[in-house]
Order: sequence, then C-alpha cells, then structure tokens
Amino acid sequence: MKIPKSHPRFVSLNIREKIVSGYNNGLVAKEGLLAHGRGEAFDYLIGERTMRSARTAINAAAVTLLTAKNSVISVNGNIAALCPKEIIQLAKITKSKIEVNLFYHNEDRKKKIVKHLKNAGAKQVLGTNPRSNRKIIGIDSPRRIIDKDGIFAADEALKNAGKTIITFDLNPLSRTAQTADITIVDNVIRGMRLLISACKKAKTKKVSFNNRKALASAISEIKNNLKRRATLA
Amino acid sequence: MKIPKSHPRFVSLNIREKIVSGYNNGLVAKEGLLAHGRGEAFDYLIGERTMRSARTAINAAAVTLLTAKNSVISVNGNIAALCPKEIIQLAKITKSKIEVNLFYHNEDRKKKIVKHLKNAGAKQVLGTNPRSNRKIIGIDSPRRIIDKDGIFAADEALKNAGKTIITFDLNPLSRTAQTADITIVDNVIRGMRLLISACKKAKTKKVSFNNRKALASAISEIKNNLKRRATLA
Repeated sequence: MKIPKSHPRFVSLNIREKIVSGYNNGLVAKEGLLAHGRGEAFDYLIGERTMRSARTAINAAAVTLLTAKNSVISVNGNIAALCPKEIIQLAKITKSKIEVNLFYHNEDRKKKIVKHLKNAGAKQVLGTNPRSNRKIIGIDSPRRIIDKDGIFAADEALKNAGKTIITFDLNPLSRTAQTADITIVDNVIRGMRLLISACKKAKTKKVSFNNRKALASAISEIKNNLKRRATLA
Repeated sequence: MKIPKSHPRFVSLNIREKIVSGYNNGLVAKEGLLAHGRGEAFDYLIGERTMRSARTAINAAAVTLLTAKNSVISVNGNIAALCPKEIIQLAKITKSKIEVNLFYHNEDRKKKIVKHLKNAGAKQVLGTNPRSNRKIIGIDSPRRIIDKDGIFAADEALKNAGKTIITFDLNPLSRTAQTADITIVDNVIRGMRLLISACKKAKTKKVSFNNRKALASAISEIKNNLKRRATLA
C-alpha cells in the first residue's frame, strides 16, 4: 500500500514498510514484525530522536569495540533488513566478526540473512556451520545454539573472564537492556550511524560508563516526554 | 515454536502466538502484527493490568452503548483474531451492528474476517457490500471507504449531530485516542470482557465522563509505573 504523504506518521510508516519488505524476502520472522512494533512504540515515547543518554552509551560502545580483542556483532533478521551496510561498516572499522543469531530459530531464514549480508559486502558471516554449534547453559530458548567461533567465545568469555555485552534495545526496562554492560536505548537505524561515526572519531582509551545510570536517565527522559506530550495534547 | 514455560514473558508470548495464527489464517495484515507489537509495548508500560482510568472509561462506554440509537462495532483483523466471541456478545447485549473496517484495505482479508465472525456466531456483518460503500471526506487513507449502513451513518452523524466514538487504544497519546469521545486505554482482550460485564450490570442512565481527564490519568499511571519499575530494576 502507498502511504499518503499527508499521514502524520509518514516517516515511521516508511521504516515499517522496510521491515515488511524484509519479511517478504524471508529475512524477518513474523515475530520480528511484532518486535519492530514494540520498538516503534518505545521510539515514539523517546520522541523519535537520539537521547543524550544514548549518545553517552554510543561513545562508550565505540571505545569498547575498538579496544576489544574478540568482538562479534550479533545480527538478527530485523537489523539485517534495516541496516545491512551499517553492520558491515561497523565490523570493518572495529575488526569485528559478524554472526547471525536468531531467537526464532530457522535454518532457511538464517541462510537468507547470511546471503543478504554477503550481497551487501560482508566477507565472512558466522552462525550457519552446524559443526561449530555450542550451547550456553541457562538460556532456555533456541537462541542458546550459537556459533563457537563467534558469540560463544565472546559470551562464555563474558561469564568467565568479564567481557562486555553491548546491545541496542529501545525498551530500557527489558531483561536484555538491564543485563547488558552497555545498552544503547535508540532506534537501531539512527544508533548504528552514530556508532559508526563515533568509532571513526573515538580515542582508544578507557571510558567510565555506568549502564544503570544511563538506563535510569533514559527512563527519566521517557517520563519527561510523556509529561510534555500530555500537556500539549 | 513452542515457548518454554520458564520464559518470563510466557503470557504475552502466547497472546502473540494467537495473533500470529490470525495472520496465518489470513485475518491479520503484516501491518497488524506490527500494530500488535506496539500494543504489547504499551501494555507492558501500563503493567499488563486494567488501569483505574480504563475502568471508568469502560463504565461510560457501557452506558453510552446501551443508550445509543445506532451503534456499530467496527472490527479490524486484529480484534477479530483475538476475541471474536466477545465482539458478538457485545453486539448482542448492546443491539449493535458489526462492521469490518480495515486500515490496510484488502477485499479478500475482509471476506475472511466476515467468515471468521460468522463461524463464531455473528448473524450479520457489514462492510463487504460495494454498493453501500460511502466515502468520508477528510480521511486520506483507504479506511475512508466504509459501509453506509454501518459506521458511515454513525460517523457522519457524529460530525453532523454530535454522536459518540468509543475506541480501544493502548497508546493514550495517539490521534485516535485523543480524538475519540471515550478512549479505553487497555488490552482489548481484558477490556472487552470487562466491557461486556459492565454492559450486563449498567444502569441505562447518563454518566459524566471526561476523556481528556481519563487520558491524562492514563498517562500519569504510565509515568508512575515507569518510576516504580525503574526503582525495582
């Protein structure tokens, strides 16, 4: 359907069509469409712009990625559909591996995502070699099956040797947001671009970053937006 | 996919599977999956329980429906997939017509929704007779095409003779929520059941209800939930 330009949600509706086309091409799961909808709601609440707390998180993420020894970019269908070029750019600048890792496991979809990323310029994409599958104990969903060369190494290392998880999550209250070391509460389309330019500019020295503080600040910004919009309404 | 019971989002994930199955049966549009996702996010923020302000709105809606002369229940694919029996029950109790009215227009999907509602026990469902199509001026989307026997009569009458729009919307800031006369900010699965029992109990006398006040109160409840959850996190 062609969305009339007069529609007040024109921009958001067009990103929506991008994810729907990702679904039509077999990259995005039905559940991925739902997840995108949740993201839309939170993006709406943060005002559809990058918050100050997200910029702080992005800068910390840039330094962390540039100084990491074994960094892996975990990709699902949604992010592959929305910003394949940015994933590859980020991997290049930060010398990271790319791994496809799906919550709703599907070998065919995985292969399509890998192909999509390779078409966009990726040289190597991990996650589809059954012989290098490893399980992480304690995660009771198909997402537990991940590649030993990619996140398995990074994530297990995280538990055993204190490595770092960076995540994009528009919901600052989610489990993922709350358990990560650096949570970027932003639309991944805006956030990935900012992360790439932060990586280009970043000095490779340690930064101090407190995820709890950043998340509290994100929640507080949402509250202020609600207050402001409720007054305007 | 079978969702493990250990998953902290088990209930919400099961409703999600209901909407996915509605999609598989041709009732729900891809965009409907996204809309459900947005609803999930707002339901999460209101604490996945019916707020006090929603109960007030539900009671006002019950009285309004019971005293209305020409009430029409407008149904889209999502609500048809989630609670067909409740739609029919509500129509019976309130002597309302049922009309299928899609934002993402699709004749085939419309027919499937009508069939689904008839299978669930509906006698008459409006919205599919092309000869009774009428346009509402000023709404620049396919949703402007509606049945002259159903919402056209009610909605035009609304503009010309001050009739009333009642809506379910989990986003208290949306245009729909802000322009309706009575907005029930609640999950439609919970809200429809409460609305039906309110209709059974309601006295058919006028109630005073202020939608702006109710919406402000809903927004305020969301803010308080954010505050509480941010503290617990």
